[in-house]
Amino acid sequence: MIHTGGSEIEQLIQLLARLPGLGPRSARRAVLHLIKRKDALMIPLASALQRAVEAVTICEQCGNVDTSSPCAICTDPRRQQNAMLIVVEDVSDLWALERAGVGPVRYHVLGGVLSPLDGVGPEDLAIQELIIRAGEFTEIVLAVNATVEGQTTAHYITDRIEGLDVKITRLAHGVPVGGELDYLDEGTLSQALKARTAL
Amino acid sequence: MIHTGGSEIEQLIQLLARLPGLGPRSARRAVLHLIKRKDALMIPLASALQRAVEAVTICEQCGNVDTSSPCAICTDPRRQQNAMLIVVEDVSDLWALERAGVGPVRYHVLGGVLSPLDGVGPEDLAIQELIIRAGEFTEIVLAVNATVEGQTTAHYITDRIEGLDVKITRLAHGVPVGGELDYLDEGTLSQALKARTAL
Repeated sequence: MIHTGGSEIEQLIQLLARLPGLGPRSARRAVLHLIKRKDALMIPLASALQRAVEAVTICEQCGNVDTSSPCAICTDPRRQQNAMLIVVEDVSDLWALERAGVGPVRYHVLGGVLSPLDGVGPEDLAIQELIIRAGEFTEIVLAVNATVEGQTTAHYITDRIEGLDVKITRLAHGVPVGGELDYLDEGTLSQALKARTAL
Repeated sequence: MIHTGGSEIEQLIQLLARLPGLGPRSARRAVLHLIKRKDALMIPLASALQRAVEAVTICEQCGNVDTSSPCAICTDPRRQQNAMLIVVEDVSDLWALERAGVGPVRYHVLGGVLSPLDGVGPEDLAIQELIIRAGEFTEIVLAVNATVEGQTTAHYITDRIEGLDVKITRLAHGVPVGGELDYLDEGTLSQALKARTAL
């Protein structure tokens, strides 16, 4: 007896509710928003999603998400000097570094971090692929998250590629730009003091 | 030089970011979530959206969003006794009342509230359509929001349909079920006390 739109609408709500940051309530709001803006938003979104379904692929070299494999980063001629390879956990980290404009670097997406509790071992991540690629570069930056799992993964990778003639570095710890000392944890503060630089 | 996925991915992010509750950052997260779950989520969502684009329509009688017009509520045989017509601002309010299981009622969606500052007058809302329908029912419940604009709209509608032989009511004000008095505004509390009921 209860009607909240047809089954097509209900299905759309249920699928949208599975996106991160959306729940059933915000998915309903989003669907109504779409229906009210059918020409301006719903139809373009439907076709953009269909085009993305057809075009998106994973780069066979670095694990990036793109519309070609090898991806636009791996084939960018300005990034061919093979100086720096930045190792990240996820594609979102790669995108964040690109937004920060870190320069003509290359990337390697691990696809996660080592986590024995969750059953994630080295063979579940793109670590073997990294070892194969690592020799081509002069420096490997382990830009994994500053979590326990991230640091464990960084140590594991360091052990595996130490034999190769390649410099291994990690991102600096310190005070975030614009951050207030009062809100920072003690670990970050003590690291930031240890790594202080001359003015 | 900066690459964050191909143009198909970038377009999808920009369109998703225009949904309520999502911004550029959460749209990026949502798109990565979709790409990682291509078969389980991205392809079903693309086809559900396409089906909804083709199927969704607005009910010519009540303004509800559905896949047929008149909608499933207007054509439901159990709702044909024309007892109660609930007037709501938006389809989301209709859905909320349906989820609450309010019984075999019919609805009329105004499509907004009177708001002279935003240039919304009576001709921008489905008020004329309401006046035409109102005579068929024995009771009109004005379930507009308890905002200044909502109450203004309720008064305007009451003035317009008072001549008809139909009872006009509004939703009760009071303490929300499960609500704590301490967090309620004074207006609600004093209304709840005035409208107190015997135990």
